[in-house]
Amino acid sequence: MEREISLSDLFFKRPDLETFCTGIFQALGLPPEDSVDAGRILVSADARGIRSHGLAHVKRYVDGIRAGFISADVNITTIYETPLSLVLDAEGSVGLGISRRAMDKAIEKAAAHGIGVCSVRNSNHFGIAGYYTEMAARQDMIGIALTNTAALGVPTFARSAWFGTNPIACAVPALDGKMFSLDMATTTVTRGTVEVYAQEKKLLPAGWAVGTDGLYTQDPVQLLEDILYLRGGGLLPLGGEGTVAGGYKGYGLAVLVDILCALTSGGTFGSAVRDSAVTSARVCHFFMAIRLDLFRPPEEFKKDMTKMLDELASLDPADGQSRVFYAGLRSHETESRYTKTGIPLAPKTWDILKKIAAELHIPVPCPIH
Amino acid sequence: MEREISLSDLFFKRPDLETFCTGIFQALGLPPEDSVDAGRILVSADARGIRSHGLAHVKRYVDGIRAGFISADVNITTIYETPLSLVLDAEGSVGLGISRRAMDKAIEKAAAHGIGVCSVRNSNHFGIAGYYTEMAARQDMIGIALTNTAALGVPTFARSAWFGTNPIACAVPALDGKMFSLDMATTTVTRGTVEVYAQEKKLLPAGWAVGTDGLYTQDPVQLLEDILYLRGGGLLPLGGEGTVAGGYKGYGLAVLVDILCALTSGGTFGSAVRDSAVTSARVCHFFMAIRLDLFRPPEEFKKDMTKMLDELASLDPADGQSRVFYAGLRSHETESRYTKTGIPLAPKTWDILKKIAAELHIPVPCPIH
Repeated sequence: MEREISLSDLFFKRPDLETFCTGIFQALGLPPEDSVDAGRILVSADARGIRSHGLAHVKRYVDGIRAGFISADVNITTIYETPLSLVLDAEGSVGLGISRRAMDKAIEKAAAHGIGVCSVRNSNHFGIAGYYTEMAARQDMIGIALTNTAALGVPTFARSAWFGTNPIACAVPALDGKMFSLDMATTTVTRGTVEVYAQEKKLLPAGWAVGTDGLYTQDPVQLLEDILYLRGGGLLPLGGEGTVAGGYKGYGLAVLVDILCALTSGGTFGSAVRDSAVTSARVCHFFMAIRLDLFRPPEEFKKDMTKMLDELASLDPADGQSRVFYAGLRSHETESRYTKTGIPLAPKTWDILKKIAAELHIPVPCPIH
Repeated sequence: MEREISLSDLFFKRPDLETFCTGIFQALGLPPEDSVDAGRILVSADARGIRSHGLAHVKRYVDGIRAGFISADVNITTIYETPLSLVLDAEGSVGLGISRRAMDKAIEKAAAHGIGVCSVRNSNHFGIAGYYTEMAARQDMIGIALTNTAALGVPTFARSAWFGTNPIACAVPALDGKMFSLDMATTTVTRGTVEVYAQEKKLLPAGWAVGTDGLYTQDPVQLLEDILYLRGGGLLPLGGEGTVAGGYKGYGLAVLVDILCALTSGGTFGSAVRDSAVTSARVCHFFMAIRLDLFRPPEEFKKDMTKMLDELASLDPADGQSRVFYAGLRSHETESRYTKTGIPLAPKTWDILKKIAAELHIPVPCPIH
């Protein structure tokens, strides 16, 4: 979720943050190409206001690489390939560069044959899924990106975590660079949101999580502890607890994401996707690109797409609301705004990054203000 | 949603119901092949306990064909074709036979090239989406079927209906005929469920619907009237009202289904998908088949798939629950049970069918008991 700007935030120019972040990964031993990808992909999250998936995440990579849980080497193994498909083994590397490469391959295959798919196993966190789908959308293709993640979601009627936040992302181009860009966890909320509630000592709303008995819990602190020690309980799928508001649908979508990511690549699925004392959770990804001209001339398609998006954005709002959005509109507007104002970082994130930079002897960028 | 058996239900042998239903469509002037499809597809819904999409739906087809809103002729036009893709215009025909044909073509293209997609415009209700996805799953393929439907869902922060219940269905095979089979509306509930609440004078739970002000309504009778007269209000997307429980995610999925169905086929989308005084709502469908061996040997894939499904079905249930399901398990169990007991029909549905049969001079099957 997007976070509001705080008065204590520091603002940076996008290229400065990208160069800085690239430098960190290069100092950690990543190849130059992967370091550039890491910088671009992580900063793209902050540039859209999705702070949970941006530079706040760098420390996890740094710690993982230093502990030997995540590989700084990029030894990608091709497991299987056909004209339309590719299966890669990331061999425990940072998930960013390999995901950019995997989507590039899907796009390349789609350019040649109409549709391309690439699944990846033994990978790590890949940042925002929307980064990859929009690569395809900019090539007049429908882009799809999915990933499984460490298990913390509880199946409908169960009492312990089995699936991850397993996001679904899909981008579809309209005219003039406009696009529909959906990027959503299949759980109601992510762990990050629960952590904010724990810090602020707020009670969890219904439909977010269950405790060790498999029933609604309001207590974010207890929940996080129970998840950490694998005692049971966890986040609920989109649609919430039980079946009344459709929780089995979010659960079905989460499992579907796991199937497309892990079963196509032969990787780890379900509750086995977990951080342990000796390794990071080895996640799997799925990328797909579908050329618009499989169906219609792209300009016709994008004209209708523009009409659709304009229609949605001009709908009469509900009482108390000022406007109606479509998927991606808000984050793209944020990105335009931050291009002018600079990208804000929370002081806490900035302090951690400065400390990492000092340890790695990397110069730090100057805030604009 | 599945409905419980009532004591007054009548039970029939599946082949008897299929023959009966086929006869009705043939008497209405549908070609023999399409009549057989109609019988099989509609009865498959009742066979799984999904009564809303089965024989209870025959009257709508009969009325539509008699009024000239739905075409009994099947004049399918090929709009565009590539080795991987096909776009069809159903020309207002019954949506069942053309959808079976469209999925057959997607499967044929996948068999030849790895992946096949087919989108259809100007169609009508196609029954349960899961019928088509499971056709692909039985061929060692991942099957996807989507359809847009008449607008009755309200976008997040809006106050009037713009999208349909827009279901997402996906089936993935495991060993021994077992499969994962997700088939879900992207709205929290369907209109049928609200109608049941209206009949039973029950208040609607939170997260199901909004009134003409765009805010939560408890009144099913008023809601159905407001939807009928296009006054505003409607069903909520999966995740409910606003953003707290993720309503923007269900909204995003509903729009994505509309894009894949209507923008790929050049058909009608959004709030324009409506029944009118001169025509039925002309809906669009999307079918996709992906061969498992694009990724791994199918037997390996299906072995892992079986392991996944067995794991899910054997999870410890929450307090008060007796077991955990996975997508499709419940409806497939119902289908096995009804194969032995016969398929139940509600007396009201049976009375309507008998009346139609009498008008068309069709023999009616005998109930088993």
